[in-house]
Order: sequence, then C-alpha cells, then structure tokens
Amino acid sequence: MLSFKRDQNKRTRSYVEEAFRLIQEKPDVVDTMILNNQGNPIKTSMEPNLSLQYAGLFEILRDKVTIGIQKIHPGDELLMLRVRTTSNEIILVPDGKITALVIQKAQDRFNT
Amino acid sequence: MLSFKRDQNKRTRSYVEEAFRLIQEKPDVVDTMILNNQGNPIKTSMEPNLSLQYAGLFEILRDKVTIGIQKIHPGDELLMLRVRTTSNEIILVPDGKITALVIQKAQDRFNT
Repeated sequence: MLSFKRDQNKRTRSYVEEAFRLIQEKPDVVDTMILNNQGNPIKTSMEPNLSLQYAGLFEILRDKVTIGIQKIHPGDELLMLRVRTTSNEIILVPDGKITALVIQKAQDRFNT
Repeated sequence: MLSFKRDQNKRTRSYVEEAFRLIQEKPDVVDTMILNNQGNPIKTSMEPNLSLQYAGLFEILRDKVTIGIQKIHPGDELLMLRVRTTSNEIILVPDGKITALVIQKAQDRFNT
C-alpha cells in the first residue's frame, strides 16, 4: 500500500525519481505519475495526453475534497484518495509539494 | 470491506433498511448514510446538517469522477470512492439507484 512518511525531506529531483521508481516497481502498479505543486506532471510512465487527462481530473477532485473536508472538519487533511472502477484503481497521495498518482490493478475482489 | 453485489434487487425501503443495518454493524463504522438517486439522504445515522454537508460534497465528487473516467476510459464505471483523511476514511459505494456513504475509523496504518 502506498504510504508517504510525513518527513521534512525536500522534494528534490532525486527524491522524485526515487519515489517514482519505488512505486513503479510495486507488483500491481500499471502506471505512475508525479505531479508538482501546480498539478502538472513532472514524471510519468503514461503518454503525455493521458497524463494530462488524469492530472486534470485528479487535481479537481483533490481541490474539491480538500476544501469540502475543511468545511466539515476544520483541520482535517487529505492523506489519500482512491477511485476504484471496473477496470482498475487510481490512487492519489499528496506528499509535501508533490503528489503521486498511481494506477494499479484492482486489489480487492469487488463483486461486479 | 464494503461490497455491493451488482444484483437486480429493487432498492426497496426494506432493502435500504437492511443495507443500512448491515453496514452500521461493521466494527469500525462510525456513521452510515444512504442517498437516493438525486443524492439526497434517505437514511442516516448523522445529524441532518452534517448529513447534507457530506451528501453535497460526495455527490459532486461522484459526478466529477463518473464524467472524468468516462472521458478517459469510455465504458469504465465507478465502483467505489475512498477518501482517507487524518481523522477517518469516507467510502462512497454506488449501488443501483441508491448510494452508500460510510465513515469509518481508518483501517490502514498510514504514516502521518
């Protein structure tokens, strides 16, 4: 399962490369993308157009969740967003100034 | 873990009551809400105002995901949306004409 320790590591180029490599190596991971603070892809295993489509959608979702959760639970913070669809699972994990977006084969045996 | 079989059961009042009971009985579940096709709460363990806040936020998220995913993967369908925050985990599961929204204590040992 993805977990980013809340450390104070600067999100340097090598940090991004290492995070990308670690995620991409996980068995069920299909695609990986790292977004910068503005939500733009800075490292991706997907072709550009698909990267931008996912980045655009998940940045909107992230903003909506962050704002909505703050209104309901002031001080509460988004740690992970998971979207399970019939074809796969997409996971968004904010990590300081970067965000990891991972597409993986669905793990749970969801009855469809 | 929440799983709704894709059967053809009509979402009758007794179906809603039973689904609500089954979910609410699960060990880590804090609150449960069932929404109708318009996204309005029809059964909830939360007080009305909080129910409407969660229903409002998660209906927006659900619409955004459903439309966004269709553009990226025509034919792909939302099965579950999970939002993990510092305080808990909120799970949305569409089930025919109703939607279950569950707030549970976070299961995963996420490093914060």
